[in-house]
Amino acid sequence: MASEKNPAMAAATGEESATLAAFAAGLRYEDIPDAVVDRTIDFFVDWAGSVLSGAGQRAIVALEKLAETMGPSEGRSEILVSRRMTSPLFAALVNAAAAHISEQDDVHNGSVFHPAAVVFPAALATAQHVGASGRDLIAASVAGYEVGIRVGEFLGRSHYRVFHTTGTAGTLAAAVATGRLLGLDAVRMLHAIGSAGTQAAGLWEFLRDAADSKQLHTAKAAADGLTAAFLAMDGFTGARRILEGRQGMAAGMSSDADPARLVDRLGARWAVLETSFKFHASCRHTHPAADALLGVLEANDLSAGDVSRIVAHVHQGAIDVLGPVTDPVTVHQAKFSMPATLGLIATHRRAGMAEFDAYLGDDAARTFLGRVEMQLDPEVDAAYPNRWIGKVSVTTASGEVLQGRVDEPKGDPGNTLSRTEIDAKARRLAAYGRTLDAAGIDRLVPDLWSIASRNEIGRLIP
Amino acid sequence: MASEKNPAMAAATGEESATLAAFAAGLRYEDIPDAVVDRTIDFFVDWAGSVLSGAGQRAIVALEKLAETMGPSEGRSEILVSRRMTSPLFAALVNAAAAHISEQDDVHNGSVFHPAAVVFPAALATAQHVGASGRDLIAASVAGYEVGIRVGEFLGRSHYRVFHTTGTAGTLAAAVATGRLLGLDAVRMLHAIGSAGTQAAGLWEFLRDAADSKQLHTAKAAADGLTAAFLAMDGFTGARRILEGRQGMAAGMSSDADPARLVDRLGARWAVLETSFKFHASCRHTHPAADALLGVLEANDLSAGDVSRIVAHVHQGAIDVLGPVTDPVTVHQAKFSMPATLGLIATHRRAGMAEFDAYLGDDAARTFLGRVEMQLDPEVDAAYPNRWIGKVSVTTASGEVLQGRVDEPKGDPGNTLSRTEIDAKARRLAAYGRTLDAAGIDRLVPDLWSIASRNEIGRLIP
Repeated sequence: MASEKNPAMAAATGEESATLAAFAAGLRYEDIPDAVVDRTIDFFVDWAGSVLSGAGQRAIVALEKLAETMGPSEGRSEILVSRRMTSPLFAALVNAAAAHISEQDDVHNGSVFHPAAVVFPAALATAQHVGASGRDLIAASVAGYEVGIRVGEFLGRSHYRVFHTTGTAGTLAAAVATGRLLGLDAVRMLHAIGSAGTQAAGLWEFLRDAADSKQLHTAKAAADGLTAAFLAMDGFTGARRILEGRQGMAAGMSSDADPARLVDRLGARWAVLETSFKFHASCRHTHPAADALLGVLEANDLSAGDVSRIVAHVHQGAIDVLGPVTDPVTVHQAKFSMPATLGLIATHRRAGMAEFDAYLGDDAARTFLGRVEMQLDPEVDAAYPNRWIGKVSVTTASGEVLQGRVDEPKGDPGNTLSRTEIDAKARRLAAYGRTLDAAGIDRLVPDLWSIASRNEIGRLIP
Repeated sequence: MASEKNPAMAAATGEESATLAAFAAGLRYEDIPDAVVDRTIDFFVDWAGSVLSGAGQRAIVALEKLAETMGPSEGRSEILVSRRMTSPLFAALVNAAAAHISEQDDVHNGSVFHPAAVVFPAALATAQHVGASGRDLIAASVAGYEVGIRVGEFLGRSHYRVFHTTGTAGTLAAAVATGRLLGLDAVRMLHAIGSAGTQAAGLWEFLRDAADSKQLHTAKAAADGLTAAFLAMDGFTGARRILEGRQGMAAGMSSDADPARLVDRLGARWAVLETSFKFHASCRHTHPAADALLGVLEANDLSAGDVSRIVAHVHQGAIDVLGPVTDPVTVHQAKFSMPATLGLIATHRRAGMAEFDAYLGDDAARTFLGRVEMQLDPEVDAAYPNRWIGKVSVTTASGEVLQGRVDEPKGDPGNTLSRTEIDAKARRLAAYGRTLDAAGIDRLVPDLWSIASRNEIGRLIP
């Protein structure tokens, strides 16, 4: 709440929200470069795998039950994990929660924002509801990515210290994607953004308790953003400067907001292309160190027994998010533990879904709980969030100290996943969730890759 | 976001949220003093009138349409304005929006929080859904008032400068009221509070644009709090220290939070009894000055033509909320304008629903737009928010300056409405909304007064 003392906010023109709304409403599919379309399809496939991996997990089952109690039992929008049809709001709600629970969904480094988890649930549910085409779905999703990422960058590091940016910025991203599919003009799109921003929420406090809020945040971001856009379609109005205004999001929820980020090269810079896939099944803040450790282990042919101590040299954001988790007692909490993640890498050279699922009984990996620490590193911290550098110091059993480093963790744009890797990852995740058998997955995945060519989206899993 | 520099937060025990949850879960109807029960019934009657007054208003119609698109078309919970049955979530959503649009719903001074608008919608919808009794409804509502008011006091003045406390604290109040009716124990009630707090949202930015967000805030607070409690019933977990924790609500949304307020004399002090009725149909921040002006006019037998200038001596909160409204262009915005409200008082000696509805074409009242100003007053500001002192300086046409003052505006506990006045106000508001004809109102209002004696709540308007 210290934005009054933030000189960047004094430079706000007061037109930033309106400019974003006009960009989102006016974006034409034809104007989106092919590489952006292709990458959006990559993320859509990757996202569907993440959603299906969430089937049967306790928090998702609770949200499905909420959808049954509160929502209609028919409709044109699809809850992927339960294959139930309902209204767009509840399909978006459940799919968004499911997308985020396995910690395998994509992330944009500079904004520390997970776009797929909030954009695609709202876009897919609305596209199914209105009978939109695959091209409409893609254009809507691109608009959601571009707006949500810029909102996350705008809110800045001070915001992320307390607020889960995917919950807050995600509400606006979902509103924009939904608004596109409802055909909102620039005026109504701005109302949708206003109504989304005034609902934006999500606090990190749950991390200490391994609570289910992370899934609630994506669920609500998707559902609330969708709500904002449907309301705007019917003439419901919102604040015109919800982002940059004197009693708006930055004023209430950031002390280093930078309004110039909101309108940074709209239509020229494509933030979709800056977005990263997740390779390890853990919080993204663990990935740079995990990759650096993997490099040390492989280069020196070390086994777990050869490693006596690991220091991960990290940015402050990693300490803020991972620091509260001192003794992980759930699988999901282990994914927010640097010692757990590095312990799995040291023990198995992998930190995937299966390794985390077995972690609580994995005595070999758990011995690292007391042997891994995080230290703030000035170089890593200065580069963050634009670059996520990984640095580790590994002390061997013989007392030697080995340094490891990666400049782009696996999955980043410069070290990305191939379509073959994305396809395999999506299939693995879908199989993990058990909504579909192998034949069902074989039918679904090619359909996901060809989503842009559909004349009408319809059901993904008929 | 400056709570680290707030010494009061350093005194947090970390048990405040848990203590509140235990109080809310453990409160027995038998332990609630009769005066508190009676006053809660007063507020329930007053609230029902406010809800019905919202029928047909544009923002409410848009939310009803959302409920039709997204929610089920049958259920045990009642949307009062449209007499439609649906699930608890959508009944709470629409009733909460409708309750707040006429600016006639109750307010607690110290927390600057409107309890009825968020507590009763969630409580009624859930009570109808589960078949609860009138006594259950009352006990749940009392718990909601007591918790929500303390949360609002805790978040403090810095929070209210940017955040609409009824939207934020209201989410927790609604969660508690709902949780009671679902029979949550203290552990699950704490999960409900955690899931509510991490959804808490609502920014004042909309005031500048006369946007519809104020109704969205109460709608979402009721619906989101209700969601949190239903999820908790099914085992969905939340942060245990969402209020006082290091990445909780105070850390993100306040710089003067005081954790001692959260647990202030639970079960001994009844905040219900400190809650005020609204008499004028405008933002509560206008009421002290309106009453002070009325006193000057009556004592000196002045007509509008005798008044050349009015200075309202106010607290900073009034300037924060009313200051952005410089030229009201909608009826609702006029209710957030000190010049509009005092112009109506000067012209008609009333500022009720009818006067505001006619305001945009009321040239006599509008001449005061340029003749009323607010000035920060140290005495008024120091007393706020515990006491809402009204002070005005009225310059007459002859150049005389008359001082007016009230220490308790009409509707405050020391200057409250009688049951006759409450009954008449509720009937006036219900008639305004036109959901019911005169006979329907005659049937409904006695049923509202006897709500506590119902064995099962059922429909209010069969």
